[in-house]
Amino acid sequence: MKNLIIASTSTLHDGEYLDYLLPELAVHFKDVKTLIFIPYARPSGISHEAYTSKVSEAFAKIHIKVKGIHEFENPAEAIQNAEGIFTGGGNTFLLVSQLYRYNLMSLLTETLKKGTPYLGTSAGSNITGLTMQTTNDMPIIYPPSFQTLGMVPFNLNPHYLDPDANSKHMGETRETRIKEFHQFNSLPVLGLREGSWLDVKGEKIILKGDLQARLFRQNQNPEELPTGSDLSSLK
Amino acid sequence: MKNLIIASTSTLHDGEYLDYLLPELAVHFKDVKTLIFIPYARPSGISHEAYTSKVSEAFAKIHIKVKGIHEFENPAEAIQNAEGIFTGGGNTFLLVSQLYRYNLMSLLTETLKKGTPYLGTSAGSNITGLTMQTTNDMPIIYPPSFQTLGMVPFNLNPHYLDPDANSKHMGETRETRIKEFHQFNSLPVLGLREGSWLDVKGEKIILKGDLQARLFRQNQNPEELPTGSDLSSLK
Repeated sequence: MKNLIIASTSTLHDGEYLDYLLPELAVHFKDVKTLIFIPYARPSGISHEAYTSKVSEAFAKIHIKVKGIHEFENPAEAIQNAEGIFTGGGNTFLLVSQLYRYNLMSLLTETLKKGTPYLGTSAGSNITGLTMQTTNDMPIIYPPSFQTLGMVPFNLNPHYLDPDANSKHMGETRETRIKEFHQFNSLPVLGLREGSWLDVKGEKIILKGDLQARLFRQNQNPEELPTGSDLSSLK
Repeated sequence: MKNLIIASTSTLHDGEYLDYLLPELAVHFKDVKTLIFIPYARPSGISHEAYTSKVSEAFAKIHIKVKGIHEFENPAEAIQNAEGIFTGGGNTFLLVSQLYRYNLMSLLTETLKKGTPYLGTSAGSNITGLTMQTTNDMPIIYPPSFQTLGMVPFNLNPHYLDPDANSKHMGETRETRIKEFHQFNSLPVLGLREGSWLDVKGEKIILKGDLQARLFRQNQNPEELPTGSDLSSLK
């Protein structure tokens, strides 16, 4: 049965990397000695090695070792044998391109369906939706497809940002962009604010963290969902 | 010889649609009686018809008629015979998909090289670069390619937004996103702030408007360019 934490962000403004999630992760990964980390999204372009070191430092606090998937000769085998998997944030186009390049997309879906515990943050959360089409990232690389893992039956918008009433900037708001998505796509989109996450256990999907999430559905007004909401029947 | 205005935005915060550009456009389109409008980017998902009406109202102020390209049975012919062309903002993925769908991308390049005066705003400016890979938009539709018109030998980031020092939001800044682009791509990227535009006459490219633009090059620190800068040799 599926066992995922799908977090909006890795880091809160006043915190260290992953700190706010560590108590939750200590439980989530309680049977994990070595976590497989997927660093492909490379935030700010940092190397796989540097990114993996940063993640190792954070998980050392809860006594979990981290191995980057780039360290394996056979990344597919690494996924299949993983005790737990974490995909970090960065650029979603790059992440998805790499997952396809190494034929890991459908393998990851199969593996997570079998119950390997998973953590995603930001881009690593985006890919747990049906498609990556509600990412905030720049298309720095052309992926072979926008289809992603489909671990939840909707799409995600991590780092969801409310419109700033004082801004004079005329670029589209996040809400406008999601509205444009809904001109062509009927999937619900969940805007996850920083500090929120989804806890997926089997077919049960619960909103956690202190904040509300914002749910967008085609041809409907957006809806605020309180923390604790059960999203299991959303589709 | 090329003759383009490539504007960051259609609308300033305190202004009406296209108002700040109208004096410039009256000169740019002085020989144009009927302008061909490309509404494919559909901001907020508005229809081709509604978008074209809005544009017609603005151009009526400088006595230019507007016809939407969707009104033609043969859009390729409409491009070839156009006295002037305007591509409005909205979603760049959608715009690029439609241009490829109707086989207009390379035709538009050829037509603009011959000198048909062109105006782009936002997404309509994005496509004048070599690729659409520095757009801010959501990938709501999967285009057959990210290649665009190549009217300037670099890429554009319209609605360029400086980092907000007071923000507690942890999503990537625009500058970080462009840095990620430069991990994989060597093209310069020009961040055009709202109210700035490029004036392209033949091979001459001049920055206009009141503001500076921000130039990003691979492996170099970003650079502020004053208005009036000559970008003709940038590549």
